[in-house]
Amino acid sequence: MLAYVLFKVELGAEEEVLKVLEDIPQVKEAYIIYGTYDIAAKVEFEKVLDLGDLVLSLRRKCKEKIKDTVTMIVAKGFSR
Amino acid sequence: MLAYVLFKVELGAEEEVLKVLEDIPQVKEAYIIYGTYDIAAKVEFEKVLDLGDLVLSLRRKCKEKIKDTVTMIVAKGFSR
Amino acid sequence: MLAYVLFKVELGAEEEVLKVLEDIPQVKEAYIIYGTYDIAAKVEFEKVLDLGDLVLSLRRKCKEKIKDTVTMIVAKGFSR
Amino acid sequence: MLAYVLFKVELGAEEEVLKVLEDIPQVKEAYIIYGTYDIAAKVEFEKVLDLGDLVLSLRRKCKEKIKDTVTMIVAKGFSR
Amino acid sequence: MLAYVLFKVELGAEEEVLKVLEDIPQVKEAYIIYGTYDIAAKVEFEKVLDLGDLVLSLRRKCKEKIKDTVTMIVAKGFSR
Amino acid sequence: MLAYVLFKVELGAEEEVLKVLEDIPQVKEAYIIYGTYDIAAKVEFEKVLDLGDLVLSLRRKCKEKIKDTVTMIVAKGFSR
Amino acid sequence: MLAYVLFKVELGAEEEVLKVLEDIPQVKEAYIIYGTYDIAAKVEFEKVLDLGDLVLSLRRKCKEKIKDTVTMIVAKGFSR
Amino acid sequence: MLAYVLFKVELGAEEEVLKVLEDIPQVKEAYIIYGTYDIAAKVEFEKVLDLGDLVLSLRRKCKEKIKDTVTMIVAKGFSR
Repeated sequence: MLAYVLFKVELGAEEEVLKVLEDIPQVKEAYIIYGTYDIAAKVEFEKVLDLGDLVLSLRRKCKEKIKDTVTMIVAKGFSR
Repeated sequence: MLAYVLFKVELGAEEEVLKVLEDIPQVKEAYIIYGTYDIAAKVEFEKVLDLGDLVLSLRRKCKEKIKDTVTMIVAKGFSR
Repeated sequence: MLAYVLFKVELGAEEEVLKVLEDIPQVKEAYIIYGTYDIAAKVEFEKVLDLGDLVLSLRRKCKEKIKDTVTMIVAKGFSR
Repeated sequence: MLAYVLFKVELGAEEEVLKVLEDIPQVKEAYIIYGTYDIAAKVEFEKVLDLGDLVLSLRRKCKEKIKDTVTMIVAKGFSR
Repeated sequence: MLAYVLFKVELGAEEEVLKVLEDIPQVKEAYIIYGTYDIAAKVEFEKVLDLGDLVLSLRRKCKEKIKDTVTMIVAKGFSR
Repeated sequence: MLAYVLFKVELGAEEEVLKVLEDIPQVKEAYIIYGTYDIAAKVEFEKVLDLGDLVLSLRRKCKEKIKDTVTMIVAKGFSR
Repeated sequence: MLAYVLFKVELGAEEEVLKVLEDIPQVKEAYIIYGTYDIAAKVEFEKVLDLGDLVLSLRRKCKEKIKDTVTMIVAKGFSR
Repeated sequence: MLAYVLFKVELGAEEEVLKVLEDIPQVKEAYIIYGTYDIAAKVEFEKVLDLGDLVLSLRRKCKEKIKDTVTMIVAKGFSR
């Protein structure tokens, strides 16, 4: 399964959170973005509950840098 | 340059808009998602103004199916 | 699997959409609510893609009454 | 009376807040969800002001874990 | 009971909707406002379900002018 | 001039902030509400910049209890 | 007085609405933007009620192209 | 390139953040505003990544006063 996760982070913590995301193998891509959210990540996982493991990894590493997250689970689509 | 675009579409028009996105070469991936938005797409373009061409393509093909869009321009990041 | 779906409907169409939801067996409960959204429904489904069938049922029956939907897939929890 | 309450909680505090909700008898169901909010709960209460007691219970037990709440009071509906 | 209702209306329909609200006795005050919403109204009603009657009155009179509403039921407070 | 101000406050701090608002003469009414925001207040002021004085009063008295505010300046309307 | 107005417009109508804004003398600047909103405009006006005239001008010229507006009245600041 | 940045700041910190913005040469204008956001700024920069330098300047000077930012990159428009 796939999900997109959008992050709001502390002002100026974008690069630090991006590096943490790069160390998590389930995170297949992550980008600093401009707009309402600061980082967009694409995550691969086996079943819905595994998304919780990702959250726990993030919590141990940069909990106080992340102010808000939105998770969008993928139903279907294409990539090329 | 890269951008993520989130779409809200008419109830039940998700698959139709996904197919239109598949015919636009700048759209590198697009997924039907669950949450506040219905489709997430990743778009490649040369300069900021070229994003307007994508919008015009979409307008000709499925204008009345798309209710809302949010564009997030990418600053930097990784993909693997 | 379980999901909550929040609906914004046309002004005054709350009761009509509630009746349509009552005819869909996967909808286990649905309530007219006050706030930003107008109706909250709890839906049971086998796998993530089956949520699409619910959307198609709704589309055939009251497409133009529903202005916006937000889907929140359940990870875990309790009911009593 | 019934109300749905949506919670945004500290990153990784979902399970802890879920347990606190399980100890509050007025909370009839509560689920960790994916999307903009992290937990959805259904609450039963006698009159509108009693919702304040629930808030005070939550405050004593996990105030600093809960970042945001949205309350949606139920007008009418069905459950099966 | 009291509730505040915020309205988004069609561009330029503010005055027309304000006049309709003035004809509804339960509407105790209503103002055109600047910001995300266009009109704020304070409504008095006997019980939660009576709010539905207000909605039906509005629907008959200016349904297609009103794009979105948010209802906030009052718990307690003061006025002077 | 008139303005409505919506407040999000710390979980359980609704009554405390309501009392602070009652001590500010420009606040003509204030109510604890259910929904996305926690308190709605109506404020009277001479000119747009005077709204800043209200904010400073609030800051001295309960800064850390107030998480978010939205101000909606009134153009015109009625009260009865 | 000054105000910023953010517009959401019909997909692909950005340039058309921009041209209409250019014909309204009170609009001192207007830009097509990427994000949640599509156009940002800075407007100069004598008193709060004059903002209504701008809305009426826009309504006559491109009512059905504009889906949503947010108005932010300026208190003070600098420009260079 | 141009971008608008909207800020939410700590209650009562509007003037302090405005002064910090005045010391950053890329900030061409900044205003305290009423509505959902507290300050609107217009920023000039060479390329998308330079927006990051502005963020770092702000972080060093008033990180804990700024609660949320939204960045809207300009595609095209007019100023007079």
